[in-house]
Formats: sequence, structure tokens, C-alpha cells
Amino acid sequence: MTTSGAGPQTIRDIGEFGLISQVTRRLELPPAVSVGPGDDGAVFLVNGSSVTSVDMLVENVHFRRSWSSAADVGHKSVAVNVADLEAMGASPVAMVIGFGAPPDLPVSWVKEFMTGVREEADLAGVALVGGDMTGARDITVCVTVIGETGGRTPVLRSGAEPGQVVAVKGRLGWAAAGLAALGRGFRSPRAAVDSQRTPKVPYGAGKEAALAGATAMIDVSDGLLADLGHIADASEVGIALDSERFDVADPVRAVATAINKDPLGFVLTGGEDHALAATFAPDDVPDDWQVVGRVVDPDPDEGPCVLVDGRHWEGDPGWTHFSAL
Amino acid sequence: MTTSGAGPQTIRDIGEFGLISQVTRRLELPPAVSVGPGDDGAVFLVNGSSVTSVDMLVENVHFRRSWSSAADVGHKSVAVNVADLEAMGASPVAMVIGFGAPPDLPVSWVKEFMTGVREEADLAGVALVGGDMTGARDITVCVTVIGETGGRTPVLRSGAEPGQVVAVKGRLGWAAAGLAALGRGFRSPRAAVDSQRTPKVPYGAGKEAALAGATAMIDVSDGLLADLGHIADASEVGIALDSERFDVADPVRAVATAINKDPLGFVLTGGEDHALAATFAPDDVPDDWQVVGRVVDPDPDEGPCVLVDGRHWEGDPGWTHFSAL
Repeated sequence: MTTSGAGPQTIRDIGEFGLISQVTRRLELPPAVSVGPGDDGAVFLVNGSSVTSVDMLVENVHFRRSWSSAADVGHKSVAVNVADLEAMGASPVAMVIGFGAPPDLPVSWVKEFMTGVREEADLAGVALVGGDMTGARDITVCVTVIGETGGRTPVLRSGAEPGQVVAVKGRLGWAAAGLAALGRGFRSPRAAVDSQRTPKVPYGAGKEAALAGATAMIDVSDGLLADLGHIADASEVGIALDSERFDVADPVRAVATAINKDPLGFVLTGGEDHALAATFAPDDVPDDWQVVGRVVDPDPDEGPCVLVDGRHWEGDPGWTHFSAL
Repeated sequence: MTTSGAGPQTIRDIGEFGLISQVTRRLELPPAVSVGPGDDGAVFLVNGSSVTSVDMLVENVHFRRSWSSAADVGHKSVAVNVADLEAMGASPVAMVIGFGAPPDLPVSWVKEFMTGVREEADLAGVALVGGDMTGARDITVCVTVIGETGGRTPVLRSGAEPGQVVAVKGRLGWAAAGLAALGRGFRSPRAAVDSQRTPKVPYGAGKEAALAGATAMIDVSDGLLADLGHIADASEVGIALDSERFDVADPVRAVATAINKDPLGFVLTGGEDHALAATFAPDDVPDDWQVVGRVVDPDPDEGPCVLVDGRHWEGDPGWTHFSAL
């Protein structure tokens, strides 16, 4: 899409209203949504309590245009946010997007981004119902998803109790391995690199866990140890992981071997995969969840903490956003 | 708040989790909210259908740190968004904030911002239930409010019919006059400048209009003519405004006189005041709304449009975000 000899058509060329009209065209809305984009607000029905979460993704902090396609960024923006609702045992219903971008951004980038948003929204079962667009120096995406409990009790971080087990579902370490590969100039292993670009969230697993009786749950955004640490703190328990219980996936092992690192480091501390980690009574674990440890009494000296094979993990403890800048 | 000789404490100094813990401390939650900040998602009840809207505010596009205090930006972030729910006739319930900022931003700025957010949230009757913080080159605030219809039919832009009247409630032209003053280096008239920094949204007026039978409604963010144009387009009607019906407020007149402009220009095209404009059957207009015109048949040649004293307004038609960069 180019204008005659003047380079690609940009946001500045068509203006805010033109862009909104282009990206909201042909938006299909489910029956729960009675008013979609185009009015002051969107209107929809939720079943049970409402559950909501917000995530902001910023260019060069959460993604790079040279590493991720616009569609990748669209997929990721939806996935990271719906994962939070999955971690509450909720089902997503409606989603709004705040979008900031420089005026010289090609319209084609925005369209491809929206294609990724729609594809991931379809996978996740959520409807895009509205948004806001504005100028910004860096591409900035802020997604808020509103979901429903469907009458189920939300699964909080605070419900784990000693005697229960810890189980995970979804990928662990793939995105971090992909980041390590990309950071060294590689584009493979493809599966790991793709996981960095777009997390593969186990949609529906949160509801499945809630129905099975999960007592606490979180999505793994900052790394398994860091995120289980949030469950340990909120539940005032200890968590004892057994390293032999983890399946290390082939792409993770391949990256670790290539750069001479312990693959378990990626599995335990790698963020951004948005797997789910939950605690259950031992007999309640759904078939396709992997048991990786136990909930124990907090350490009398240290209080709540997460141990691996009885010891503190001595690698990188996780990842904080502000240090990335 | 300074550390010894090293300048003010910054976000980088205390980290993401430290900052979140500081700003969510002492957050009071109403009974409708069962889970607030600190878990993967917030949980709350809405009465009737859910209504939601999102707005993104970016430093140097929507505000300048040299013109607005952090508290002003906090107030404005909430106000502009709740105004959209008011314009649907809905009542706000819960709010989440995505917040991006450079790591060298003083923590004191964030705390003052949050004070403004909380004060405006109290005015608007909405609870802050969650958020996300990240690094960004410019301060970026993305607010999503979720409200409830309370069983009322949402007031859309598309319900205006010929024979009805157009009425407004709230300030018109104040923020634009304030911007004109600030742009010329003045800090007065104070009331206009303050309106630019923080719009004075007529909270509750949207619900009042819905209960009175408003047929279409919008909040004035881009300027009255531009926003009534959205009602005209969505309703496929004409709108005929009568310039003599408008009260020009003293601060608006003062700025217009000082810079030799027509004060009506500010009133008709000034954005960012977030007054409400609605259409009603003539007998349904609430007492404290100002009738400023009529809904008429669309012009046979031009289709839906907004006329002032029977003519197209020849001043600035409004304001678009991307041209601001």
C-alpha cells in the first residue's frame, strides 16, 4: 500500500478518524455485546461477577519492531492480558485497546497489528468492543479485558495450603530461550523464537482448573519462581519444587546447549510464556496438568519462599520492567 | 522526598513492585468490589449491562509537565474517561490504569498523580481496582472504566429525531480558552487554565439525562460542533444551533477579548471540557440543562450536518490528536 512515489501511507495521511474507521470495519460482535465500537462506550453482558485486568506494552520495552511483526505484537497484546483472567479461573468476554503511535507509522503496520489482535481474540474467545487512538513517540498498546466468573468462585493467589500440590500447564522457558536466541542474532529454534514473539496461552485451562478445584493460581509472566513466590507470599506458605518433575522442552534445551547454560534456568526463571501455575488438593489435579512440587509450611526462619530440591535457586530471580529501559 | 544528596527518589530506585505497593496502599474498596489490586485480576459486580470505555493520555500530546501538576494529570485521566460513560447514561463502577513512565521519574510525581486519580475517582464515584506499570520514554496513562446501566437503556449517538431539542450541561470553551492563555505564556484567567488542566465533568448528569428520556448523547471532547456532528451522522439528522442560546462564560470572554478572537469560537469548537450534549423531546429537558438548538431533517443536498444560525460555522472545525505531534 503506497501512495504515488511518496512512501507508504501513514497514520498522519489518513488521520485518527480514518484509521479508526478502517480498523473497526467488519468487526463481528457476539450476542453478549449490544454496542461495539463507534459510540462513547461499549455495552455488553457478563455472567456472574466481572473480572478485569490491564496490561501496557511499549515498543523497545516489551517488543521490538525488528524482532516482531505487527501481527505478533497484536497477538501478544491480547494473549498476555487474557492470561491474567485465565489465572482467576474466569472467561474473557470483552476487550478494549488504547493505542498510541507515531504519526509516521505506516497504516499497513496498524492493519497487520489489528489482524493479529483479531486472530488472538478469536482464539481466546473475547470480543474487541472499543478503543482509543492517539499520537505517541513509541508504539504503545494498552489492553483491558473484562471477563466473567460464570458463577464460579474466582481463584486467588491466597488460597494455597500445606499438603496441596503445585501443577503447571503451558510452556515454561520457551520465551526466555527465544529471547536469548534473538539477542544473539539467531532466528532459531523457530518454536522458541515464536514463543517470544507470541506466547501460546493455554486458553480455557484456567476455567478447567477452577472447575477442578484449584485453590490458588497465577499466570507465569515474570518467571515461575517469581510468580510462585507471589502465591507463597499471598497464601503464607512454602513451595517445594522438584526439579526432576519438569519436562524441559527440546527448543529450550537446544538454546541452553548452544549458549552453555542450564536449561532448567530458563524453565524456572524465564518470563513471558504465560503458562498457568496452580495449587490443588492432590486428587484434584486435571489430567493434562504437570505436578511439579508441593505446598508446605512456611520456613520458620524465612517465612514464605519457593525452594527447588530443598534449596534456594541461585540463578536470575526473574525480570523487572523498569530495569529493561 | 530526597535521598542523601542524590536527587529525588526515582522509579528506578524503588522498582516496579515497590512502586505498586506504595500506590495501592490504603486503597478503600466499595462493597461491589470483592477483589482489588494485588491479584491477577480484579473482581466486582455490575448492575445491569456493563459499559466500558478506554482513553490513553500521553505526555506532550495531552498534557505537559510544565503546565500541569501530577495531580492535575491524575484528575484529568479519570475525568475524560468517566465522561464517556456519563455520555451513555451509565454509572461508573470500577477502573484500571495502565501507567508507563521513564525510570528517572521521581516517585513523588507518581504519588501526586495517584492522589489526583483517587480524588477524581471519589468525585466520580468509581473505584480503582487494578493497574499495570511499565517503563516508557514518555509518561503514558491509559484508563479503562467499567460501569453499569442499572437496567436503563444505554443512550447512544444514534437516537436523535427531528422535532427534538439539543441541550448541553457543563462547561463549553473553558479548556480551549485556557489552552490559548497557556500557549501565550499566561497563567490566567485561573478558572479557564484550571479547566484545561482538569475538566470539570458534570458527574451524574448522564444518568439524569437518561432517566429524563435523552434520545442521544455524547461528551464534548473534540468540540461541540464536531461532537454534535457525530450525533447528526449516527442519527442521520440535521442539527440547528442558535448562537444566542449559548451563555459565554466570563473566563472564556476574557481570553477571547485579550487575544482578539470571537468567544463563540471557543464555545463551539473548543475541546476537552467534557460537557454533555444530548437530545430530548422538548418537554423532557431536565431543568439545569441549557437548550441550544433543534434536531431537524437532514439537508437534502448535504445530508446530516450541524448549522449555527442556519449557516456552516467557518472557524476551526475541531481538533485531531495526530496533528498535535
